[in-house]
Amino acid sequence: MHNPQVPETLEGWSVLHQMFRIRWEMLRTLPAAERLAVACEAAQTLAAMEARTEGATALAYLLGHKGDLMLVHFRPDFDALSAAELAIRQLRLADVLEPSSSYVSVVELGMYEMTAKLHRDIAARGLEPGSDAFEQAFDEEMAHQRDRVSSRLFPQVPPGRFVCFYPMNKRRGETQNWYAAPFDRRASMMREHGMIGRHYAGSVIQVISGSIGYDDWEWGVDLFADDQLVFKKLIYEMRFDEASAVYAEFGPFYIGRRFQAADLPRLLDGHEPWVGRP
Amino acid sequence: MHNPQVPETLEGWSVLHQMFRIRWEMLRTLPAAERLAVACEAAQTLAAMEARTEGATALAYLLGHKGDLMLVHFRPDFDALSAAELAIRQLRLADVLEPSSSYVSVVELGMYEMTAKLHRDIAARGLEPGSDAFEQAFDEEMAHQRDRVSSRLFPQVPPGRFVCFYPMNKRRGETQNWYAAPFDRRASMMREHGMIGRHYAGSVIQVISGSIGYDDWEWGVDLFADDQLVFKKLIYEMRFDEASAVYAEFGPFYIGRRFQAADLPRLLDGHEPWVGRP
Amino acid sequence: MHNPQVPETLEGWSVLHQMFRIRWEMLRTLPAAERLAVACEAAQTLAAMEARTEGATALAYLLGHKGDLMLVHFRPDFDALSAAELAIRQLRLADVLEPSSSYVSVVELGMYEMTAKLHRDIAARGLEPGSDAFEQAFDEEMAHQRDRVSSRLFPQVPPGRFVCFYPMNKRRGETQNWYAAPFDRRASMMREHGMIGRHYAGSVIQVISGSIGYDDWEWGVDLFADDQLVFKKLIYEMRFDEASAVYAEFGPFYIGRRFQAADLPRLLDGHEPWVGRP
Amino acid sequence: MHNPQVPETLEGWSVLHQMFRIRWEMLRTLPAAERLAVACEAAQTLAAMEARTEGATALAYLLGHKGDLMLVHFRPDFDALSAAELAIRQLRLADVLEPSSSYVSVVELGMYEMTAKLHRDIAARGLEPGSDAFEQAFDEEMAHQRDRVSSRLFPQVPPGRFVCFYPMNKRRGETQNWYAAPFDRRASMMREHGMIGRHYAGSVIQVISGSIGYDDWEWGVDLFADDQLVFKKLIYEMRFDEASAVYAEFGPFYIGRRFQAADLPRLLDGHEPWVGRP
Amino acid sequence: MHNPQVPETLEGWSVLHQMFRIRWEMLRTLPAAERLAVACEAAQTLAAMEARTEGATALAYLLGHKGDLMLVHFRPDFDALSAAELAIRQLRLADVLEPSSSYVSVVELGMYEMTAKLHRDIAARGLEPGSDAFEQAFDEEMAHQRDRVSSRLFPQVPPGRFVCFYPMNKRRGETQNWYAAPFDRRASMMREHGMIGRHYAGSVIQVISGSIGYDDWEWGVDLFADDQLVFKKLIYEMRFDEASAVYAEFGPFYIGRRFQAADLPRLLDGHEPWVGRP
Repeated sequence: MHNPQVPETLEGWSVLHQMFRIRWEMLRTLPAAERLAVACEAAQTLAAMEARTEGATALAYLLGHKGDLMLVHFRPDFDALSAAELAIRQLRLADVLEPSSSYVSVVELGMYEMTAKLHRDIAARGLEPGSDAFEQAFDEEMAHQRDRVSSRLFPQVPPGRFVCFYPMNKRRGETQNWYAAPFDRRASMMREHGMIGRHYAGSVIQVISGSIGYDDWEWGVDLFADDQLVFKKLIYEMRFDEASAVYAEFGPFYIGRRFQAADLPRLLDGHEPWVGRP
Repeated sequence: MHNPQVPETLEGWSVLHQMFRIRWEMLRTLPAAERLAVACEAAQTLAAMEARTEGATALAYLLGHKGDLMLVHFRPDFDALSAAELAIRQLRLADVLEPSSSYVSVVELGMYEMTAKLHRDIAARGLEPGSDAFEQAFDEEMAHQRDRVSSRLFPQVPPGRFVCFYPMNKRRGETQNWYAAPFDRRASMMREHGMIGRHYAGSVIQVISGSIGYDDWEWGVDLFADDQLVFKKLIYEMRFDEASAVYAEFGPFYIGRRFQAADLPRLLDGHEPWVGRP
Repeated sequence: MHNPQVPETLEGWSVLHQMFRIRWEMLRTLPAAERLAVACEAAQTLAAMEARTEGATALAYLLGHKGDLMLVHFRPDFDALSAAELAIRQLRLADVLEPSSSYVSVVELGMYEMTAKLHRDIAARGLEPGSDAFEQAFDEEMAHQRDRVSSRLFPQVPPGRFVCFYPMNKRRGETQNWYAAPFDRRASMMREHGMIGRHYAGSVIQVISGSIGYDDWEWGVDLFADDQLVFKKLIYEMRFDEASAVYAEFGPFYIGRRFQAADLPRLLDGHEPWVGRP
Repeated sequence: MHNPQVPETLEGWSVLHQMFRIRWEMLRTLPAAERLAVACEAAQTLAAMEARTEGATALAYLLGHKGDLMLVHFRPDFDALSAAELAIRQLRLADVLEPSSSYVSVVELGMYEMTAKLHRDIAARGLEPGSDAFEQAFDEEMAHQRDRVSSRLFPQVPPGRFVCFYPMNKRRGETQNWYAAPFDRRASMMREHGMIGRHYAGSVIQVISGSIGYDDWEWGVDLFADDQLVFKKLIYEMRFDEASAVYAEFGPFYIGRRFQAADLPRLLDGHEPWVGRP
Repeated sequence: MHNPQVPETLEGWSVLHQMFRIRWEMLRTLPAAERLAVACEAAQTLAAMEARTEGATALAYLLGHKGDLMLVHFRPDFDALSAAELAIRQLRLADVLEPSSSYVSVVELGMYEMTAKLHRDIAARGLEPGSDAFEQAFDEEMAHQRDRVSSRLFPQVPPGRFVCFYPMNKRRGETQNWYAAPFDRRASMMREHGMIGRHYAGSVIQVISGSIGYDDWEWGVDLFADDQLVFKKLIYEMRFDEASAVYAEFGPFYIGRRFQAADLPRLLDGHEPWVGRP
């Protein structure tokens, strides 16, 4: 049943973030030839994942002690996420990859404005909310929407030299509670929030994924950009809009430099896996 | 003494959730034949636990770094849970299973409506609340209820390709305090909460277990479904009802793909333990 | 000086809870004869501790990943607790016991009603609060009380197949603050709290110990019962009384099946250390 | 778009703090000659980093169990931070350096007063806020500012025998929320906050870096001084100004004695790496 | 500049608390003669630290899993703390000492009453607050105070069979905020707090140290007593005074039995390092 208090959501790729610490001391004990063989096996598997058209994998070298390597897997469903996770675990490289964190989610578009519009429009056709006819008309409209935004639900991995990932919640405090706020207030705050994002449209691409029921926060946010300063500028400006200032709770932040699977042997040999700077 | 402020509960299976990380790097050092022997020993023990009629065991492959393998043991009592735990620990496979989490609870039905009805009905018979006659009449009615819902207290492991587990509390905040709310308000919020669940009746099966006195949260929730999206839809919609929006506190979420014990050797060999997709 | 805002307390046994994970994988590497020797050495030491009359030790097998073995040491003073801890550490078994948690406290009886009565009675004798005569009269009365409740301050380990342990605080929130509530309000809440406990008198025995200054919570609670359901029923019902609903904060819960030291070799061999069920 | 609610910021060096525990027990197993070789290799690499003019590295010996060695890398961009991190990881010394913490940020000057002034001045020129002309004029003014404060954005590592590092947030509580406070209130509180800092200008130098989008807190603070007492005096006095008293949340504190890379072999041999005291 | 809202503080010894777990299983693998040699080397170093007159070291055996050995180093400055830490790390015993916690602070006397008095008295001399003459007069008075309380700033290690250590903060909640309370209210609460302490003057000695800027809490508290019950009585009674009830936040508590360095070999051999009881 379509509940007018709950924004409709559309779902796309299933997503698994994997963060690993590289056990450099173990890697160094390997003879150079074997280290290269281990690195090449992993590079080949990851290059194939990078090249997938039905949900690809992105690689990043993380800054700081929370991890060295981040893999972001986009896949058609959770079975395919499990398959990717198992494939990584079976690499010989896996012995030197210590899982330090992870995140399970599904690409999600929250449809505040569309939800209100559909309830209004379909009721205006004389259909009774909750009736079979109403529900069916609603489902049909959602199917249209799903087709319309298909490329945002099932995106290619966006370009951008850097990736920033963090999970977040909407606050359910004792006096400030997002889920107890009226639908229209929430819709209006999300509109304001989205307007700020639009000013950064040219320089940053964001992918939101929902994780209620899958992981310990409600949403995951991935930002992709060529200039890492834009992450700070964007998130700082948003922190002053009401949806964030009053209602957002943030988890740990991960910041990484993206690189190609083909350059993994270079990284595992202790060199920056990217060459030159734009 | 039956306290009219406290909802009566009925209890069924004792439950132990065990989450393990598989030490793949240790597993890989075993010769193939020995790895298979280790896997088969475990598969046989777990298959027998799966086939139990007096409280069975379910297996799932977890996504993410919080664990690889989750076992959900339903048993007649805590002695039997200990026996299951010790049996797992004595497997040769146990050397490569690192316990990462666990949860101890008892299948529980909370009876808000029935509690109010029994207090009302038995008092209407002229029995004095707190008197021996009252208490005895109450106990007899509860015994009837227990028989009536026996299959929900002692369920078979529900079907469903995916399982989602999380623990939760009712909030005891300084201004929003579930346990300080009047019985009727709580009963009415639980009714509303239950109505949402009913809309998902065909696609998800839930098992609630109580853990006050046994573990660090008040309840455990297991959801079983063939489509993992339904977990997100259900929990998100519930987050807007008052019982959840204002009073629920959630612990970590575990999401796993169920599989049969017979496929454990396949998993330990690095393959998805399930074949084909519906 | 006896402060009329502060409930008097009487103290008994010093208490040390020790929780250990058993390193089964290490235990299994021992030849059977050596494993038995290690187990018997530990069983003999623990059996002597079990048989002490001046503060004994109880053993329990814990459910879940928080620990496998819990030892509860009651002793005359902290020197004796240190001696017990050192004795355990010197066992050959100690190599396979990984300390996962612990708790330091002293058996305590809080005397809300008695405190009020003594201040009232002694002042009624015409003694000036704070005067030497007042203090001396007060101390004498407390000494009488101490004799009167001696068996509760220095109890035998209570019977009961199961033991449940958890630490707790009284909340000091910004608006709900136990320590800022008037003495009479606190006394009245403790009275109500105690009445619920009395309904369970036949089926559960509780030992309260104070830990302010010794460990990270203010009190430890041990419950002993033959039926584990009674823990859940009791604590759930208490959660609705004001002292708990508004003012209690709970730490981690430990639930274990008690067993005799003589059965430790059986446990370390992978079997349930208890035989039969009542 | 320049948002009048959001203080403009200017950015300088990218910064990576790395905290390591030294595995002394592993270091001691090395023959003295090899230990010296390992130490000298690291000393040479770090001495070159110390001598950089385009963003240098500072070393400190930390007090307490949170870490032994802290490296503070100032660099032109995040690629250069990654390069520094990889260079450290490839040292033979890395095998005895266990990363215990880290922090990623960018040197930042927050411009509360300037932001207000620019919005006022440019609007006073008759330009429409949000118009292209307005934005362009604003950007030009900011570029002037950036040149003006260039030496504070791209500082040399300040002198000072001791360094104190901690991360912090501005509170977003349910009733006290920095990000929901009016711009003028925030500006006035930051002014007051800055005045206290100015009283300590001769004895302590502070470097603020922004970490929104990069790490788990919003800002990092580095203080440099010859007398460690000044850290306590300064931070204690600031704790009473409104910006800190009401709105600051502090992360872990790290306190270290700075030393030169050339003295690293001395430290790794177990001696204080500094000689004499001022 | 002396700020009338901020209580003046006087500082004495620099303090480092070190908590270690003893790796008994590693210790036991040593031949008895070597174990004794290792123990004696450590005992000699620690005995020299114990005997220092310019800031000594105290030893305690901790109860519970948070640590076995606690060293409390009092020293003239942070360089000397580093020297002590490095000296411990270079002991052969260090291989079996796992650092589990630590605390960095400086012995501190907070001077609420004196601060008010000096501001009053010096202003009464006609000096303008903030003027050079005022500041100079104030500094001179503080120097007199420092001489007056020198033995409390640079104490010998107090006697007492037991030591209790815990860190604490003053709360900065959204409605209850110590740092936003008027100076006179704070002074009055500290006076009341001190009065309770004075009732215990004969049986417990307390050393307060400040850690703002050095460690994760604002103050450290060490209590020394012959009878461990006095810790519980004192801290419990204080919990009801306003400064504690409303404004105190407590970190972890450590409780230990003090012993002499000369008895360290006895402890490492598994015996209580103290003989007899008073």
